[in-house]
Amino acid sequence: MTPTPPHSPWRLARRAQQMNPSTIRELLKLTERPGILSLAGGLPAPGSFPVDAVAEACARVLRDDGRAALQYAASEGFGPLREWVAAELGQQGMVVDPARVLITTGSQQGLDLLGKVLIDPGAPVAVEQPTYLGALQAFAPYEPSFVPLVCDDDGPRPDALQAALAGVAGGSGAAAAPVSMAYLLPNFQNPSGRLMPQARREALVLSAARLGLPLLEDNPYGELWYDSPPPPPLAALAQQLDGARGAEGVVYLGSLSKVLAPGLRLGYVVAPQALYQKLLQAKQAADLHTPGFNQRVAFDVLQSGLLQTHLPQVRQRYRAQRDAMHQALQRHLPEGCRWVRPAGGMFFWLSLPEGLDATALLAPAVQAGVAFVPGAPFYAGAAARHTLRLSFVTLSPAEIEQAVAALGGVIGQALKAPNPERHCAP
Amino acid sequence: MTPTPPHSPWRLARRAQQMNPSTIRELLKLTERPGILSLAGGLPAPGSFPVDAVAEACARVLRDDGRAALQYAASEGFGPLREWVAAELGQQGMVVDPARVLITTGSQQGLDLLGKVLIDPGAPVAVEQPTYLGALQAFAPYEPSFVPLVCDDDGPRPDALQAALAGVAGGSGAAAAPVSMAYLLPNFQNPSGRLMPQARREALVLSAARLGLPLLEDNPYGELWYDSPPPPPLAALAQQLDGARGAEGVVYLGSLSKVLAPGLRLGYVVAPQALYQKLLQAKQAADLHTPGFNQRVAFDVLQSGLLQTHLPQVRQRYRAQRDAMHQALQRHLPEGCRWVRPAGGMFFWLSLPEGLDATALLAPAVQAGVAFVPGAPFYAGAAARHTLRLSFVTLSPAEIEQAVAALGGVIGQALKAPNPERHCAP
Repeated sequence: MTPTPPHSPWRLARRAQQMNPSTIRELLKLTERPGILSLAGGLPAPGSFPVDAVAEACARVLRDDGRAALQYAASEGFGPLREWVAAELGQQGMVVDPARVLITTGSQQGLDLLGKVLIDPGAPVAVEQPTYLGALQAFAPYEPSFVPLVCDDDGPRPDALQAALAGVAGGSGAAAAPVSMAYLLPNFQNPSGRLMPQARREALVLSAARLGLPLLEDNPYGELWYDSPPPPPLAALAQQLDGARGAEGVVYLGSLSKVLAPGLRLGYVVAPQALYQKLLQAKQAADLHTPGFNQRVAFDVLQSGLLQTHLPQVRQRYRAQRDAMHQALQRHLPEGCRWVRPAGGMFFWLSLPEGLDATALLAPAVQAGVAFVPGAPFYAGAAARHTLRLSFVTLSPAEIEQAVAALGGVIGQALKAPNPERHCAP
Repeated sequence: MTPTPPHSPWRLARRAQQMNPSTIRELLKLTERPGILSLAGGLPAPGSFPVDAVAEACARVLRDDGRAALQYAASEGFGPLREWVAAELGQQGMVVDPARVLITTGSQQGLDLLGKVLIDPGAPVAVEQPTYLGALQAFAPYEPSFVPLVCDDDGPRPDALQAALAGVAGGSGAAAAPVSMAYLLPNFQNPSGRLMPQARREALVLSAARLGLPLLEDNPYGELWYDSPPPPPLAALAQQLDGARGAEGVVYLGSLSKVLAPGLRLGYVVAPQALYQKLLQAKQAADLHTPGFNQRVAFDVLQSGLLQTHLPQVRQRYRAQRDAMHQALQRHLPEGCRWVRPAGGMFFWLSLPEGLDATALLAPAVQAGVAFVPGAPFYAGAAARHTLRLSFVTLSPAEIEQAVAALGGVIGQALKAPNPERHCAP
């Protein structure tokens, strides 16, 4: 147990040591100052929210079914919304029983519940390098030992799962248990923006099946594609390649935050039977159920077919912003910077010339009126400190141009500095 | 780790063994069959929900501030709602800094976050006998060792905290650590309906301060009083009796589920500085933030002053239902049954004649068209199996009369049975 400050009678649990202020959230506060152009947060463009459709849905739900919408509800979620999710995933090649869909308070809650049900202290959990910071934070209180997967621009390398298992099982580290699962984000990953091609997905799914390694597939960004739709989810490929056993080996997490609006806090988990019951019990204990009102409003909007017109508009908007950022980066960034134009999602992942530390550049960047997120916190293993994440979904193309120009200036200054080591954070 | 069924690659964490189907939720499914008069669930009367006010608030929020309402938001909660909570608690004698208010996804989430931050495996946590089942379920995955407090009709006895500490510290059990905190529900406790009188509150607060034992005070029912308002919260008394040190020693949980509507899932925790930061980090990891839309809608309703007219109406409605149940119990229950008419809240707590097992009576009761919740699951220690909980807030007075008459018949039959032992569950 960890003592809190003097005079406090409270004693914190050991796992509370694993909970630390979110770097990104602390930064967001800093960058909310007026006049700062923020490329930091992964905030969807508020102009993309279907405010009118939500308003109409609220009125309809409260008029037709207000009392049920405001009452306690089933922990599993609102039946028609669970059926909508199952049908929607069917379009992506997954065969999903609505009874295996658990509605969560954002997909962040899905990560927390999975951590609670699956992670023992010290259990090795394999993660991409870099990976979603929110997952690291959700899992950390359950005290896993993170095992970094070797990745390239297409995601974890085909032999990465096997290497992770071998490395831990036969390694010299303290973790003696085998890797218990791998957490993967195949579509336009946060933060790297990378997309796993179909061949890589198939290789990983087959490798996982051979190794008996279960997969957590997190897909918040799949609908935000700007060139062509992504390949089928790992969960679909596992079913196709390995039937019922394949379906049993993948848990799938989805979200309505990116396609509808994050302020409703609606996500979902699709889990095999054995796991579903425990997740449901964890859900009951965590918040009884996700707001029934929100679930009904979302279902009302979704079943109206809004997404069919709404999503193309969102894609068009974000495609223009992505292209604006790509062009601005080409125009304003000094030589030696490297990035891949993402085919979807919300982020560019930028590698600065070696020797520069992105964390040390943040203060001068904010000084110059632009904010970003340094890459280091996204690494469970050794961090590539010369990386940073730029969001292109919040600002307009003109603001993006201005922000990237300022950023380019800051990087150029750093490169010209007589002693570039001073940019390395302690 | 616990193996899941054959062929599943998933391995459950040890704590998942502590998660079991909620008896009450499973029962609720059973009793949702048409034709059953359910006294089981703690569902507020849907007729009491301010549906029109919520509809107007939704329209206003989305019209005036729709984009912000649908965007990601601060983990702490919506500023004006936190200020409203602080001001509201001020009316009850608590001095609350809005910066110490954390908005949660129902107060159930507050219990989960507190368990996560405070409970190490094996840590002794003192609880009332009986106590709120949802708290036992929220804490259980963190693997505490529950220490039952000796209670009477006024709550834990004045020396109960000291006895719990002495019993564990000097006892022969496996738990060697001192009791780390006590979880208390002073107002119209679920399930017992009991109210701690002011003298008992003062005695417990002084005892906790002397022992250096921190308190979790859970108050979902405080506004649902039918005779006179309850005494000040433990948190207020601790401040009055012991100043800043007293304030440091009590965490307070509140809810909007009972005064507004449970389907919005809004609760809050008031915590001292040291704990607040860790709770906030746990909150970020658990679901990023409680739906901002819901928080704005609730604030809009609350700041309109609706509660000033709404709460008296709710109290009047529930008072009539409580009185109907009291009279029905007097009329229909066989001799040897015992209960105290609750001064607030939602529940009667019924003791059957010794030898009867409430769990064994449930099946014949459902057969006779009435459902209730057996008392056993509410006990962390040895259960009083002849107890059961009856909710009076869901059914109308006429339905309550009918349901209690049916229940009385079932109990009477059980008493007349030649071999009452057969009603004892295995």
